[in-house]
Amino acid sequence: MTVLGDQRDIGLLEALATTRAIRRYRPDPIPDDDLAEILWYAQRAPSGTNRQRFRFITLRRDDPEAAPARALLTESFRKGWVAKRAELDRDGEPEEGSARFRMQAAMQHYVDHFDTVPVVVLVGLERYRRPDPSEGASVYPACQNLLLAARALGYGGVMTGWHAFVEDELRELIGLPDGVALCATITLGVPMGRHGPLRRKPLGGLVHDGRWGRPATWLGERGE
Amino acid sequence: MTVLGDQRDIGLLEALATTRAIRRYRPDPIPDDDLAEILWYAQRAPSGTNRQRFRFITLRRDDPEAAPARALLTESFRKGWVAKRAELDRDGEPEEGSARFRMQAAMQHYVDHFDTVPVVVLVGLERYRRPDPSEGASVYPACQNLLLAARALGYGGVMTGWHAFVEDELRELIGLPDGVALCATITLGVPMGRHGPLRRKPLGGLVHDGRWGRPATWLGERGE
Repeated sequence: MTVLGDQRDIGLLEALATTRAIRRYRPDPIPDDDLAEILWYAQRAPSGTNRQRFRFITLRRDDPEAAPARALLTESFRKGWVAKRAELDRDGEPEEGSARFRMQAAMQHYVDHFDTVPVVVLVGLERYRRPDPSEGASVYPACQNLLLAARALGYGGVMTGWHAFVEDELRELIGLPDGVALCATITLGVPMGRHGPLRRKPLGGLVHDGRWGRPATWLGERGE
Repeated sequence: MTVLGDQRDIGLLEALATTRAIRRYRPDPIPDDDLAEILWYAQRAPSGTNRQRFRFITLRRDDPEAAPARALLTESFRKGWVAKRAELDRDGEPEEGSARFRMQAAMQHYVDHFDTVPVVVLVGLERYRRPDPSEGASVYPACQNLLLAARALGYGGVMTGWHAFVEDELRELIGLPDGVALCATITLGVPMGRHGPLRRKPLGGLVHDGRWGRPATWLGERGE
């Protein structure tokens, strides 16, 4: 087993290049002070007109107050994975040892152990406009900051939207006002075991120069 | 004048704590190779099921192909600022020297010089589901990575949504397919002059522990 440990001195570029979704956690807790620090960095993220309408609802493993919401989410994540796996399996079962096979094993482990995840952070957005696809510009940069900061403190995490299956009941359980959108569920813990590298498509397929469909030839080797 | 310059060795935590919106740029260009590298880091960001449906349309200052879209955006940003200033001024004119006064001066400078910004990146999302407020989870983390990576390479930038005023015409100019949402307009350049610190509200007001409205007492000094 590899323990990443505290990496407070990690460089920005290295962190951007290597921070990946972490879904297997050791049982180790996240001290409240570390969680506070992670949230502090999350809040440094930009938001529309710097309104900072993102909100963090922390569900800590040892907090009895958080237990009902955590139990409900555990159920939701298991349902979510059953639905997702069915969707993936429509393209056929994955070959043993393939990237998808490993991903599916990690997902199964994730939902099987959701109830023991040290910290779950629900991320909300206190709305000041009508719901809109672009409103995420004021909340998801903070989610990314949160995941990056967690990395520096020795933790890993992943952002999901799998609260959606139980959202109404969850909102009632945690007393979320109507004006607050539930945008993400982020799990955090100390990474367990070895994690593979980031997998990304060739950059060239994602960049269009000047107009749609014009290749960015200047990407050079980075486009491959 | 302060030139930040290349900061490739900047630490992750320092970058998260200090990267702020930059709206005043020196005339210096952004070499294509630096832009390629910034986009490469942007693509390392997570997205739903790692689909990487974010798309980057680059509008480089010296590219004649990009000129019509840049001219249209210049007009849109000027209109956007007039509208925004009117909204802000409903609460009264800002006091000279106040934070809002400085912000407004920076905004005026920004829109007045928009046509000379070295690089504008339009960020799109190739949709695979119906438009939804949560779809931003698959595009705005990449925008935040982009802004952070720019910092390490000596650039600054800001994410805006001010393409909205001319979106139909812009989409036609750049040939954007109907299935691609236009999510953000990011400007990048070498920062000019001195930039103040990040301004953020007390963290305690943003964090709820276990359920909405329960203070996270464990934030300690970080909550203040």
